[in-house]
Amino acid sequence: MPQLRIALAQVNPTVGDLDGNARLIVEWARRAADRGAHLVLFPEMMLTGYPVEDLALRGSFVTASRRALERVARRLADEGLGELPVVTGYLDRRADATGGRLGQPAGAPLNAAAWLHRGEVAVRSAKHHLPNYGVFDEYRIFVPGDRLPVVRLHGVDVATIVCEDLWQDGGPASAAGAARAGLLLALNASPYERNKDDVRLDLCAKRAREAGCALAYVNAVGGQDELVFDGDSVVVGPDGALLARAPQFVEHLLVTDLDLPAASDGTPATSHDDSDGTTITIDRYALDAAAPAAAGPEPAEVFEPLDDPAEIYGALVTGTRDYVRKNGFRSVILGLSGGIDSALVATIAADAIGPENVHVVLLPSRYSTSHSVSDAEELVKRQGLNARTVAIADMVAAFEEQLDLHGLAAENLQARIRANVWMGLSNEHGHLVLTGGNKSELATGYSTLYGDSAGGFAPIKDLVKTSVWALARWRNTAVGSDVPFLHPFPDEPIPDEIIVKEPSAELRPGQRDVDSLPPYDELDPLLVDYVERDLGHDALIDAGHDPELVDRIIRLVDLAEYKRRQYPPGPKITAKNFGRDRRLPITNRWREPSEQ
Amino acid sequence: MPQLRIALAQVNPTVGDLDGNARLIVEWARRAADRGAHLVLFPEMMLTGYPVEDLALRGSFVTASRRALERVARRLADEGLGELPVVTGYLDRRADATGGRLGQPAGAPLNAAAWLHRGEVAVRSAKHHLPNYGVFDEYRIFVPGDRLPVVRLHGVDVATIVCEDLWQDGGPASAAGAARAGLLLALNASPYERNKDDVRLDLCAKRAREAGCALAYVNAVGGQDELVFDGDSVVVGPDGALLARAPQFVEHLLVTDLDLPAASDGTPATSHDDSDGTTITIDRYALDAAAPAAAGPEPAEVFEPLDDPAEIYGALVTGTRDYVRKNGFRSVILGLSGGIDSALVATIAADAIGPENVHVVLLPSRYSTSHSVSDAEELVKRQGLNARTVAIADMVAAFEEQLDLHGLAAENLQARIRANVWMGLSNEHGHLVLTGGNKSELATGYSTLYGDSAGGFAPIKDLVKTSVWALARWRNTAVGSDVPFLHPFPDEPIPDEIIVKEPSAELRPGQRDVDSLPPYDELDPLLVDYVERDLGHDALIDAGHDPELVDRIIRLVDLAEYKRRQYPPGPKITAKNFGRDRRLPITNRWREPSEQ
Repeated sequence: MPQLRIALAQVNPTVGDLDGNARLIVEWARRAADRGAHLVLFPEMMLTGYPVEDLALRGSFVTASRRALERVARRLADEGLGELPVVTGYLDRRADATGGRLGQPAGAPLNAAAWLHRGEVAVRSAKHHLPNYGVFDEYRIFVPGDRLPVVRLHGVDVATIVCEDLWQDGGPASAAGAARAGLLLALNASPYERNKDDVRLDLCAKRAREAGCALAYVNAVGGQDELVFDGDSVVVGPDGALLARAPQFVEHLLVTDLDLPAASDGTPATSHDDSDGTTITIDRYALDAAAPAAAGPEPAEVFEPLDDPAEIYGALVTGTRDYVRKNGFRSVILGLSGGIDSALVATIAADAIGPENVHVVLLPSRYSTSHSVSDAEELVKRQGLNARTVAIADMVAAFEEQLDLHGLAAENLQARIRANVWMGLSNEHGHLVLTGGNKSELATGYSTLYGDSAGGFAPIKDLVKTSVWALARWRNTAVGSDVPFLHPFPDEPIPDEIIVKEPSAELRPGQRDVDSLPPYDELDPLLVDYVERDLGHDALIDAGHDPELVDRIIRLVDLAEYKRRQYPPGPKITAKNFGRDRRLPITNRWREPSEQ
Repeated sequence: MPQLRIALAQVNPTVGDLDGNARLIVEWARRAADRGAHLVLFPEMMLTGYPVEDLALRGSFVTASRRALERVARRLADEGLGELPVVTGYLDRRADATGGRLGQPAGAPLNAAAWLHRGEVAVRSAKHHLPNYGVFDEYRIFVPGDRLPVVRLHGVDVATIVCEDLWQDGGPASAAGAARAGLLLALNASPYERNKDDVRLDLCAKRAREAGCALAYVNAVGGQDELVFDGDSVVVGPDGALLARAPQFVEHLLVTDLDLPAASDGTPATSHDDSDGTTITIDRYALDAAAPAAAGPEPAEVFEPLDDPAEIYGALVTGTRDYVRKNGFRSVILGLSGGIDSALVATIAADAIGPENVHVVLLPSRYSTSHSVSDAEELVKRQGLNARTVAIADMVAAFEEQLDLHGLAAENLQARIRANVWMGLSNEHGHLVLTGGNKSELATGYSTLYGDSAGGFAPIKDLVKTSVWALARWRNTAVGSDVPFLHPFPDEPIPDEIIVKEPSAELRPGQRDVDSLPPYDELDPLLVDYVERDLGHDALIDAGHDPELVDRIIRLVDLAEYKRRQYPPGPKITAKNFGRDRRLPITNRWREPSEQ
């Protein structure tokens, strides 16, 4: 039985950084070679980053990706890595694209995968099933591939597929079975979503059993705009048993020794009818690669997935860190109110980029309690943040002298003056502004447009308020643990007073959130069912929510749509964030019927 | 030869307003009946409005649409209109949807069309070709229909198709030819785009010739978020000759008498192979409708399309009017600087909702010239707007006392203080804030986030600066004309001084736009080629643009992406606006290569 040592490079590419991503390929291919791998596998669209969205429709970008692929193939050979087959995702175009057909993406781009070997692009294929739901827009920007490559390597037939081709029944994954592949490689850029790790592993096991061969699943890691890739790459055997698993939210080379069936020269299938009515052609190749120098055996690595709060916190830290860094910032600024939201955002930022790069502004007004100020100061002290205090009373007075504002208009004025301060400091010093809105506020419109909602990135925009508290508590308990993405604060970074106090916007005397919103332990489950699960009015009541509350919250959520569109991006951790994955008309007169 | 009088109801539905849209159907069906029509045709998704985006994925909304369709059928009969066949678009779902298949839109929604007759839904069909490019996302939210209904009415075989089915070669429009239909009805919600009217008419003529029958094309009219529907409904003969044409940007009932071939009872086709590999089943129906009372002959109406500036101005007025009204506002507020952008926006607003509903704020600073103030005051006087002046000097001073801001940070501060004033007045008085950014500014990032770019709607966001001037000039010349969507100002509404002055943001002494940007007559054509035509670096130089300018502008445009995402919606008049039709990653390190 042939044995292959495969290396899964779970790495963090940057969208559009073709040179930087090519350097990652060379660097991680070297690590794989150093560990005696017969093969190294990179994620979907590794060379361009993912998702590239409408950049795929720009011909010069596709050309740049194709050329970068050829350059990296040559460079691997130049650096002595030419014998190691490197499988990587990249952006290509269909050669026979007639172009210009209405509705076909301009230039017929492909979400492609290539085998690089001996300085050449030896094999090219492309994703067949194009996801076009949730955060995915692939019908818009790609044309489907219709070939499954099966590459004979050291006596094993190895097939490659891309991401969604694993998820859809009857497609290229089935074709790999029909082709009697001995190993199936799946290249992925599969965004993190709460609890998705279990779904993915079950899916890999199922497809491995269907195809009757081992399956290696490599995923990207890192943040890209609203998406966070969690890694969690896995290898399963033909029986679906878990053989190896990479950690979440960190770059990792997962090296696994596999005993694989020898390829046979019978009369294997040359094509496969997909259940979508198309036919997948099976392309066969043989790579005459030199075997790597024998190395000692590799112990199987099986990392445990993180528990729920650690996993979510990891997604938020990763999303924040990469949004800051990949956009060329080094530091962030935010307003620190003494409340739980800005406290958690400051802590996430400190974990993500180090407390020395976090700048906070305390902006007390006449309605701020003394507790708020002292709690904020205590947090600054515990975390070692850069802090300054800017009193806004005179600014508010200057506006009030000219304008006669009441109620909400007067409250919003203060929030906007604060935003004006941190935007000014951002422009002056080059910090990225973080904003502290959570999903409960955002969904119900309980925030000020151009006020507290202003900023470049919203780390907790996909966390309901009860989860904000839960994560703050978790973060305090995680002090001293070995969770990899946390700053080593010696003590609990968030003062308990901040976690236990009653929430208030402090924009008028004695204001409390419960004056405007239901208690969060009633609101949040309803928001989850309405927004994430898309239940209608009657289904919400059937699910046990209070009918009066259902009416009230549906009205609030439906009316807050414009405000949500103006909200900055933030790491996505649930099925439905308020970013690109939830597209609703702003002008919409439809209201969930009260009775049907 | 049978004769049919057909009525095309070019009307303005509102997304989600099922009751209001149903009332429109009854009201316009009555008008058609009063004019002796044998048939009345409404636009695509008439009952729900278009586009509904992800609302289609909410089961309760689909159910509400289906019920509203049945209700409107009964109501037509109850009101004595049951004999008149009413063809209308609505939202349905596939009855045999298995549901839950990965990648299939939840609930299998259909972009559907129905024939209503004698209180019943007599015929149902659905759009086959689902556009998924530009502003369209229909793969995301619909499943395709696969049937062509052919309805025998007064001895004529009448087929119905929906929008994109007319645009794609070989689909349902060809099936109508194979079915030997005598009349083809096309229901559309086809957004306005500059010069699209000519394309549409040519397409209708081509499809009529291919199908060998007359073709009636009804389009919606009105604004919906960023989209503007221009109407321009047409009827063409089997030879492609134009028989009737409705005006643009106004509701209209286009009534046309057609001599049509009698249906024959040969052995007509029962199905048609589409060029996309699917099969369209031809469903035959017969409606036993009573002939309407004979009425006098209807003269053929053929409206001339508007010339370019009138058409664009019509799109901006329509988009602004409907965004204000359909979102439940009655009045707008904007800052009036004395510059051309805010002057044109104020004028568009006055045309859209009446000058009595337009509120302007003059916010002079120490850098405003006296001309700016007097020019703004002159515009207020000519148009009869509601105006107030708010001096911002003390507010600026209050910030400067606390913050030490320089350069751009200091300039942005003033812009944000102004925004804070108009947002405060908006919150206090319930006006919608209009913002004055144009496409040249927006593309290059020459605006302040949360400053001049703040607001709920951006009427000129899709106009480059040179077009802003051109439209202002055109608007002045249109005084006294019979263009239908203009307020009857007795004199030129825009003072000439505002049109001829050199553009300046007036945020520092002596500032001029040309200090930061190239002259607009060089910048604008380059922006059109880069943004709208998606030309890459080399192609831009080949097109004759200055290489140094190309490098500079590509850099500016690529870096302004985040700011553009924060920009409010505005009427779309070109192939690529900066709204939903241009999706780019914010975090993107790719730059157009300087040489390839």
